[in-house]
Amino acid sequence: MTRRAIVHRVAMAGPDDVAGIEALLKNGQVNASEIVAILGKTEGNGCVNDFSRGFAVQSLRTLLGAYLSPTQLDAVPMVMSGGTEGGLSPHWIVLAARADARMDPPVTPALALASAVTRKLSASEIGRPAQADLVRGAVLQAMQNAGIRDLTDVHYVQVKCPLLTASRAAEVRGDVATPDMLKSMGLSRAASALGVALALGEIDAIPPDAIGRDRALWSGRASCSAGIELMTCEVVVMGLSPDWTGDLRIDHAVMHDAIDSAAPVGLLARIAPGAPLQGAAGQIRAVLAKAEASSGGSIRGLRHTMLEDSDISPTRHARGFVGGMLAGLIGLTDLFVSGGAEHQGPDGGGPIAIIYTTKEHS
Amino acid sequence: MTRRAIVHRVAMAGPDDVAGIEALLKNGQVNASEIVAILGKTEGNGCVNDFSRGFAVQSLRTLLGAYLSPTQLDAVPMVMSGGTEGGLSPHWIVLAARADARMDPPVTPALALASAVTRKLSASEIGRPAQADLVRGAVLQAMQNAGIRDLTDVHYVQVKCPLLTASRAAEVRGDVATPDMLKSMGLSRAASALGVALALGEIDAIPPDAIGRDRALWSGRASCSAGIELMTCEVVVMGLSPDWTGDLRIDHAVMHDAIDSAAPVGLLARIAPGAPLQGAAGQIRAVLAKAEASSGGSIRGLRHTMLEDSDISPTRHARGFVGGMLAGLIGLTDLFVSGGAEHQGPDGGGPIAIIYTTKEHS
Amino acid sequence: MTRRAIVHRVAMAGPDDVAGIEALLKNGQVNASEIVAILGKTEGNGCVNDFSRGFAVQSLRTLLGAYLSPTQLDAVPMVMSGGTEGGLSPHWIVLAARADARMDPPVTPALALASAVTRKLSASEIGRPAQADLVRGAVLQAMQNAGIRDLTDVHYVQVKCPLLTASRAAEVRGDVATPDMLKSMGLSRAASALGVALALGEIDAIPPDAIGRDRALWSGRASCSAGIELMTCEVVVMGLSPDWTGDLRIDHAVMHDAIDSAAPVGLLARIAPGAPLQGAAGQIRAVLAKAEASSGGSIRGLRHTMLEDSDISPTRHARGFVGGMLAGLIGLTDLFVSGGAEHQGPDGGGPIAIIYTTKEHS
Amino acid sequence: MTRRAIVHRVAMAGPDDVAGIEALLKNGQVNASEIVAILGKTEGNGCVNDFSRGFAVQSLRTLLGAYLSPTQLDAVPMVMSGGTEGGLSPHWIVLAARADARMDPPVTPALALASAVTRKLSASEIGRPAQADLVRGAVLQAMQNAGIRDLTDVHYVQVKCPLLTASRAAEVRGDVATPDMLKSMGLSRAASALGVALALGEIDAIPPDAIGRDRALWSGRASCSAGIELMTCEVVVMGLSPDWTGDLRIDHAVMHDAIDSAAPVGLLARIAPGAPLQGAAGQIRAVLAKAEASSGGSIRGLRHTMLEDSDISPTRHARGFVGGMLAGLIGLTDLFVSGGAEHQGPDGGGPIAIIYTTKEHS
Repeated sequence: MTRRAIVHRVAMAGPDDVAGIEALLKNGQVNASEIVAILGKTEGNGCVNDFSRGFAVQSLRTLLGAYLSPTQLDAVPMVMSGGTEGGLSPHWIVLAARADARMDPPVTPALALASAVTRKLSASEIGRPAQADLVRGAVLQAMQNAGIRDLTDVHYVQVKCPLLTASRAAEVRGDVATPDMLKSMGLSRAASALGVALALGEIDAIPPDAIGRDRALWSGRASCSAGIELMTCEVVVMGLSPDWTGDLRIDHAVMHDAIDSAAPVGLLARIAPGAPLQGAAGQIRAVLAKAEASSGGSIRGLRHTMLEDSDISPTRHARGFVGGMLAGLIGLTDLFVSGGAEHQGPDGGGPIAIIYTTKEHS
Repeated sequence: MTRRAIVHRVAMAGPDDVAGIEALLKNGQVNASEIVAILGKTEGNGCVNDFSRGFAVQSLRTLLGAYLSPTQLDAVPMVMSGGTEGGLSPHWIVLAARADARMDPPVTPALALASAVTRKLSASEIGRPAQADLVRGAVLQAMQNAGIRDLTDVHYVQVKCPLLTASRAAEVRGDVATPDMLKSMGLSRAASALGVALALGEIDAIPPDAIGRDRALWSGRASCSAGIELMTCEVVVMGLSPDWTGDLRIDHAVMHDAIDSAAPVGLLARIAPGAPLQGAAGQIRAVLAKAEASSGGSIRGLRHTMLEDSDISPTRHARGFVGGMLAGLIGLTDLFVSGGAEHQGPDGGGPIAIIYTTKEHS
Repeated sequence: MTRRAIVHRVAMAGPDDVAGIEALLKNGQVNASEIVAILGKTEGNGCVNDFSRGFAVQSLRTLLGAYLSPTQLDAVPMVMSGGTEGGLSPHWIVLAARADARMDPPVTPALALASAVTRKLSASEIGRPAQADLVRGAVLQAMQNAGIRDLTDVHYVQVKCPLLTASRAAEVRGDVATPDMLKSMGLSRAASALGVALALGEIDAIPPDAIGRDRALWSGRASCSAGIELMTCEVVVMGLSPDWTGDLRIDHAVMHDAIDSAAPVGLLARIAPGAPLQGAAGQIRAVLAKAEASSGGSIRGLRHTMLEDSDISPTRHARGFVGGMLAGLIGLTDLFVSGGAEHQGPDGGGPIAIIYTTKEHS
Repeated sequence: MTRRAIVHRVAMAGPDDVAGIEALLKNGQVNASEIVAILGKTEGNGCVNDFSRGFAVQSLRTLLGAYLSPTQLDAVPMVMSGGTEGGLSPHWIVLAARADARMDPPVTPALALASAVTRKLSASEIGRPAQADLVRGAVLQAMQNAGIRDLTDVHYVQVKCPLLTASRAAEVRGDVATPDMLKSMGLSRAASALGVALALGEIDAIPPDAIGRDRALWSGRASCSAGIELMTCEVVVMGLSPDWTGDLRIDHAVMHDAIDSAAPVGLLARIAPGAPLQGAAGQIRAVLAKAEASSGGSIRGLRHTMLEDSDISPTRHARGFVGGMLAGLIGLTDLFVSGGAEHQGPDGGGPIAIIYTTKEHS
């Protein structure tokens, strides 16, 4: 049966403010059982001690727990990305799918989305090739679940993956990629991103010691975040499929550095051809982007100070800066700009995907 | 005699790295006696305990002290703005003027710049109308020094003004605008900005209690910073004058909020008509802009979190975010984006001025 | 009937870790209905955007909601203080009371504790004398509830009070003590502290304009914190009463500056006479203290930099520093050291109360 | 000839405030040529982008440059330690030595101090055993220069050592201990500390891979800091020698964790036997201590949050906390508490040395 994607961008007055989602559920715009995943851009520091993420998830689970069975609830990936630096605005993105009784085949492929989950990883697998292989499989499974037939029709893959803690490392007698919790987050994101790249044919194989190191390897469509609350990898794939109908679409581009406005400008021009700057804002349902400080300490030959600032972490700097660029181009501030872009776009750059409606006045 | 402005944007490896300016002096591109003012974008936090500014000034004075008499040295305004958040790049802007023997009158008005200094303020005057009146006079004096004939030919006014300390307040028995040092910086910038607005005819008068409060009053060409090391207000005026020759020009625009890309895009289109985004980068000599968090806590109706973040000051957020927007539009990261924009552009926005050359390949 | 106080200090692995309290409930050490109040020292920044506090409260309410009716749940003050700077350790303090059937009158007065709540305040009353009056009444009511007969038998008063938001201010057409949310927290704490001082006879009256300004007025037994989730003031009084039995006691002292070790040393000497430094640690059930940066910028004539540090808020500096002093003297790091000490002890100092058992080996 | 040590602790109103030292020079309390070394506790973040240190050194060099030849100036170690968290107070410690014509042999050994410098290191040697060997030699040389005859008479060794930069690493084709600048600071401090431990007989040898890793190896008398401005290691040794006269002495103790008050209390009891807490303050000339967050994330079994706080670096937390403990015990806040204690005292602890006068009322 044909499906139709539903995407809502919902303002958040704080990490525990789920009133906007509750309203969607109450007025029937979304049924809880239709929800495929929920992303959240919360206002913490996006680093180790960012409790805005856990607070948001706990609040979401309390809300949805009134509508869903525990098993159903556990099946909904909830991916919180901390950090709304600069003028970025905290918000939820509710991603849902509804069966559509319409018999007519859709004219053009529409936004398709589905999730898949890997088996539980052992602590020894985190940040290593085994994780990439598992993610690769889950991406292909999610593609199949979504009815996306061609690798080029995938425009965005969100992965939520586990990290290492001291007790998890102890369970495998220290046979881990790193003993450092913060580093394990980076390596887990890195392995996940390379898993996406493998699945999408962006790379052929992962050379030894490449995970987290070889910045020449990257996916232009992966966005990965690590969380302490799971030992599986949850994967949400978004793309285009002729099995789906409705007016929503998705497209993406790759920023090659932190000031690469040409990439989003080109993407916006495909969404709303001929529109002026910020002219596509009304059509946009969600903006999903990655940002990071370039490892070499410079942008187009000019020094940046993100890596030497001991007061503000580089991820906070990068989100605010790239967020400012995107907000100026797009005309919106509720953008899902996420940090920690290991193998997610080139060094210092990152992917950007936009979900939009084809209806001009919406 | 006709004059010609000289403007160099010079990379800075740290607050004490004056090697780039030393090279200009040694190879004769600039003579020390020609220097009108030096601006610096240094990599501190831009707030109270930002020692990168004082370190930069001390380093500059040591360098120039070898070329200039103490009196000459004291006459050179050195305006350091702390904060290179996001991908912004620390740099100096050397502003100089050279007599030009050329007899031909210039075809079009060229960049003109000059400074003026008020008398010393008493602590009681700081942040109050008396300061605005003094700045107003200094702006008009600097215009005359620069040979700028029309108020509309002024495109940027940099003011460096004093702040209050406990000992200064004690000298006037506590008759001060505020006992708080940080607030006195804001009030001093505010009074200076309104002084510029008065001088340029952007406002007619300062209503009672308006300084630092009435956000409807602003200058679209003022940029003010407060420093502990002076009790005068130093004013540098930049504009266009038929008395000046050379290929340098200046123009400005006003951003009405933190994502108002239309303003800089329009400005860039006047500099390099028909050029693509970032296409004017090669012509640009200096970008001077103000950024701030809107006081209402939102941008175009969407909440921002800059004012509630107790870990990062709002000025740091705003510089990084607006810096990102401008860098994406302009294609450069060594932009003089300064925070603390009281009465300098509308609430949440700010002025942007660009010094550029008319030569396409330079 | 005679009552007996129960106090548990429980480690917290994160703001949502209520496992230790759940264990107390499950093994019967505490019955949910016996809980008088729960304090929590959580690991956020203790300032505006500290979500560790709300996350902790939400987690506590979810846990206790399985044991208590909504009305019972709402009657339990939950006071979260953010900030475990330095080596301070996040923890809960569960305060409970149990009826004791024992017929023998207790030998000496024992720890007594009870709460009381004011009526809802209007936004206009927050931070003003009306709030102090209401708190005064609630302190006296809580004393009566606790059976504490003499003002000198009160050793610690915890107040949780409301703050102003833009919408609350709008409800009273702007007739508020301050339009600034952060400042309203300070004024609300200040009014509450003076209310405690009034109740305990530490001051006779509140002079005009004294709230938040006159640092010579203070309570040596008040600890106040402001929270967005209530419009009443919740008061928990702790002291000694002959109506209570058991081996728990409470005593307090007042630190006169941030390095006033004599105050806690004297207090410890009363708890465990003759014991060496850190020798009373085993007897201690809870340490409750206030810390703040002295307003004059110095400690015993030597400059401190807490008020000029734009990267770390003064409250974070003060908690870590005073926390270090107390931990070194006491030999424990799970101390409830709270910032924001307006009228709570002298300028730059603060009260310290200790709940302890008289049993030497416990 | 007999020598006499001169030690002045001088308040600093900012990193560039050398007025107190200038006064010492002008009134003859110290002659510039007598200065052996200057330590400074400056008010930056103590991490990578702490410009308060460089600013202080530049200010010192400008001052002393009027008194000393460039060669003499370069021979004075200037060791700036950033970070005055909590109530710590920025200050200079001027260490000098004066020939004393007195013929009488001193009654007891007095404070002796002298410096020595290693040859320039190659970038490949930084953070490796070669550096430790060089430091070992310099410590022994400085002991000889100071006339300290016995290893047990050394109470404090300050080392200032180099760090790696990208360009330095490139000079040796990447044959470096780490490519990471921040990590190289830690490894350089670590190698220096083990060099001191070797010299003082605290360890016999450095096992393979022990530098920066094996926390069981440490010196109880080393304090090391890394700086970008040198490629040598500068060593200042302080101890007791019968060749020196005067009333100054030095003693030390080792703190075994961050709340080990017993160590400084014992040390203070040796300085002023029978005095109450804080009773030795008037005799103290300088307090030199190290602080760090314990690597295991807990103090005496209770969790601390210093290592997971992404807003404040662990070194800042540790300095403020241990600074608070020491200030409460000693009664002073101008303490040279320094972070980054690799192999300088046990994990989570650190050495503390005190220079004091034997004169009771001074």
